[in-house]
Amino acid sequence: MYMSGDTICAPATTVGSGAISVIRVSGPQALETVGSVVTLRSGSVSEAGGYTLHFGSVPGVDDVMVSVFRAPHSYTGEDAVELSCHASAFVVQRILELLVAAGARMAEPGEFTRRAFLNGKMDLAQAEAVADLIASNSAVSHSLALRQLRGEYSGKLRELRDSLVEIAALLELELDFSEEDVEFASRDRMLQLLDETIARVGRLAASFRDGNALRSGVPVAIVGAPNSGKSTLLNALLGESRALVSDEPGTTRDTVEETLTLDGILYRFIDTAGIRETSATVEKMGIERSLEKLASADLVLGVLDACSPSIEDDTRSLIERVDPARQTLILLRNKVDLAGGSVAGCGDGIAEGFPLLDISALRGTGLDELRSRIIEIGRARFSGSDDGMVTNLRHYEALRTALDSLNAVRASLLGTGSGSLLGSGSAAAGSALPPDLLAEDLRAAISSLNSIFGENLIDAETLLGHIFERFCIGK
Amino acid sequence: MYMSGDTICAPATTVGSGAISVIRVSGPQALETVGSVVTLRSGSVSEAGGYTLHFGSVPGVDDVMVSVFRAPHSYTGEDAVELSCHASAFVVQRILELLVAAGARMAEPGEFTRRAFLNGKMDLAQAEAVADLIASNSAVSHSLALRQLRGEYSGKLRELRDSLVEIAALLELELDFSEEDVEFASRDRMLQLLDETIARVGRLAASFRDGNALRSGVPVAIVGAPNSGKSTLLNALLGESRALVSDEPGTTRDTVEETLTLDGILYRFIDTAGIRETSATVEKMGIERSLEKLASADLVLGVLDACSPSIEDDTRSLIERVDPARQTLILLRNKVDLAGGSVAGCGDGIAEGFPLLDISALRGTGLDELRSRIIEIGRARFSGSDDGMVTNLRHYEALRTALDSLNAVRASLLGTGSGSLLGSGSAAAGSALPPDLLAEDLRAAISSLNSIFGENLIDAETLLGHIFERFCIGK
Repeated sequence: MYMSGDTICAPATTVGSGAISVIRVSGPQALETVGSVVTLRSGSVSEAGGYTLHFGSVPGVDDVMVSVFRAPHSYTGEDAVELSCHASAFVVQRILELLVAAGARMAEPGEFTRRAFLNGKMDLAQAEAVADLIASNSAVSHSLALRQLRGEYSGKLRELRDSLVEIAALLELELDFSEEDVEFASRDRMLQLLDETIARVGRLAASFRDGNALRSGVPVAIVGAPNSGKSTLLNALLGESRALVSDEPGTTRDTVEETLTLDGILYRFIDTAGIRETSATVEKMGIERSLEKLASADLVLGVLDACSPSIEDDTRSLIERVDPARQTLILLRNKVDLAGGSVAGCGDGIAEGFPLLDISALRGTGLDELRSRIIEIGRARFSGSDDGMVTNLRHYEALRTALDSLNAVRASLLGTGSGSLLGSGSAAAGSALPPDLLAEDLRAAISSLNSIFGENLIDAETLLGHIFERFCIGK
Repeated sequence: MYMSGDTICAPATTVGSGAISVIRVSGPQALETVGSVVTLRSGSVSEAGGYTLHFGSVPGVDDVMVSVFRAPHSYTGEDAVELSCHASAFVVQRILELLVAAGARMAEPGEFTRRAFLNGKMDLAQAEAVADLIASNSAVSHSLALRQLRGEYSGKLRELRDSLVEIAALLELELDFSEEDVEFASRDRMLQLLDETIARVGRLAASFRDGNALRSGVPVAIVGAPNSGKSTLLNALLGESRALVSDEPGTTRDTVEETLTLDGILYRFIDTAGIRETSATVEKMGIERSLEKLASADLVLGVLDACSPSIEDDTRSLIERVDPARQTLILLRNKVDLAGGSVAGCGDGIAEGFPLLDISALRGTGLDELRSRIIEIGRARFSGSDDGMVTNLRHYEALRTALDSLNAVRASLLGTGSGSLLGSGSAAAGSALPPDLLAEDLRAAISSLNSIFGENLIDAETLLGHIFERFCIGK
């Protein structure tokens, strides 16, 4: 087991307006260090058993509750102590100063979780889930982070990795017996396993776009002609006056973003500058920004002015800008309260099958229906992904690398394969790779998957630093 | 012992960027409520002993550490549980929802400490010290709050109260024997005790101005003519560019306030608009504000421009505006770097004994000396007040009321007294109050002191509400 030489300390809670603050101490001298700073009512911290709770005092500073943990039964796997004191920045600072004077040092960001990883208390993906869980802001992102923390996600990846190990074993077998004229049933099995694995790794990698959207919010662009009521719609959805609203077309210049959780999924609503031909420089810059936001949105709310004579042109221009393969468009005919009866029919013909809702952002008409539609779309998209969902860029990159290696393995396997078993005429000896290169690609794929949960990577300081630096101090 | 019927829960830490959050639960059903939400690895929360620590899980939400406390050995004196979970607003919210669904209710602000008071775990002054300790932002305010929390302050007040009870007993004695011709040694003792008590209560009440300054910061006004370098001085003292600085006289309009702790005492530095004759409306408003700040400051830093031909007039005008009985003035001859040799002597003659320092706010010259002077003044003012210092307006008002009652008692006593013992010819039977009114004044004074630590006040809902509403939720 890993054992760091030094003892670290850090605040584990934010100091704000709360009632208590918690200070964490971990390392071989944790109990002695705390013992020299905290006086217990009876006995001493350094003699306390694991999983015990004590009332104590830091003389002249505060009364504290002391939770004692003995290695390996602690978060870090080391001896550890948690001190609860009054939530005063001054008190926390004084206690930390005393701990440092007694021999501890201030922890680096993420150092507690890093030690937990190094001591085998969790794998890398689980350690990363700690940060994700803390940052989770919707039911779905929370549930993903929790499953990852509980090891389900790593479990699925380990299954995939084990399939690759099995393929590698089959390959070794084939290499060993290649001189003899053995059956190639093993190659058949190899390809089958490989195709299954490629499909699963591919699905996981593809889930990253959704996973990422879940974490930072599904991007929803609110676009349309100037003065069609986009900012009013944003404010109505948020239930607050977030974006400036005026009768003057072109009020919004910078894009305005706000997140909102609907049915457990986080959405990032982006109000944009109205799109029109203009020569004004600032407005032009705003419109360029609008088009970028439209292009990168998952869901597009196309706002139309029911009273505008150009509503049909505006509708066509919106539909043209959306990529139906990866974007969902909802057309909103706004200001129906002003248009009165004249709205019926206008523009319907050119909606081309996209959902078209009549709303009044100002009066709230039709907004419940809009919310239901958004929820429906979110639900359909994010439900039931049994292999889990990739929310972490590092994992995504590892999966992409693994996929490249696996596709190379597959190509080699087909190239060197015997036509009879594969049932494909394209398998020709000419494109064959030497079996040892094939084995190397396979090892590369295994290593990519391993890197996600951090096996065989304990000495890769760079990778670890990269992962743990996004943690806060005290975690 | 007080026992509330219901079980309350609340977050006890702020949700920010920390590693863990703590949720508090207290009340007769605390253990059962938590037990129905949290699954322990072995056993159940409702059967756990007091002062025990357990690892558990809120299924589908998070892993938690569970600290169990059994009445009366808890903060509130009731059965209580503290749950540590990951510091996610989402997780905290979910756990609180589950606790509420299991029968707990969200706590009112300060309700945990209120229960601690009602259960006799602390007196009112100690309960108030909890809030003070959390808000403490300097060594001195922290030490005052800690002494109050530890009960030292209440102890001193109880001594005073007990003296009054003794006087009341002596008075009863006198009333009982008033028909008989007994000696009046008791009245002598009564007056002596009364004078001592009045002096001590008076000193305590008088300490409120200092105590209050310590809590919110000793007000230090930076005043002077326009462009004398006041904003530059503020920035130099803070070590950051807080106030806007330009060559244009009259740059500062609004007053700019920033706190700084020097040698354990918090100071509130207030940069003001330069004082001059002007007809500009906005500037005039700024100057009025400057004069207000100058009048309410404890310490005045009078900034003079060493290069200005009007330095002598400016000095005189500053000195005129300061009340030496309650304010300390330090004159600062700024811009000595620009004035070169010509500064020597100018203005010295009219400093009238006020300390005069040569500084360059821009270059930092003389600022260490200035800081030492400020520290010296702060130390002299706030050191050694053995009876403690009153930092709380409620206590100050109670002490003032007690003082009024005691002075009434003293006047009556002198009025009804026998001249021989008092050695004063002014004691005349004509101004005598009936002894029962005198006893009533004494009871009023005792009751005022009692109200500070909250004895005999358990049923005064209004008072309690007033005290605990300034607590945060979870305390």
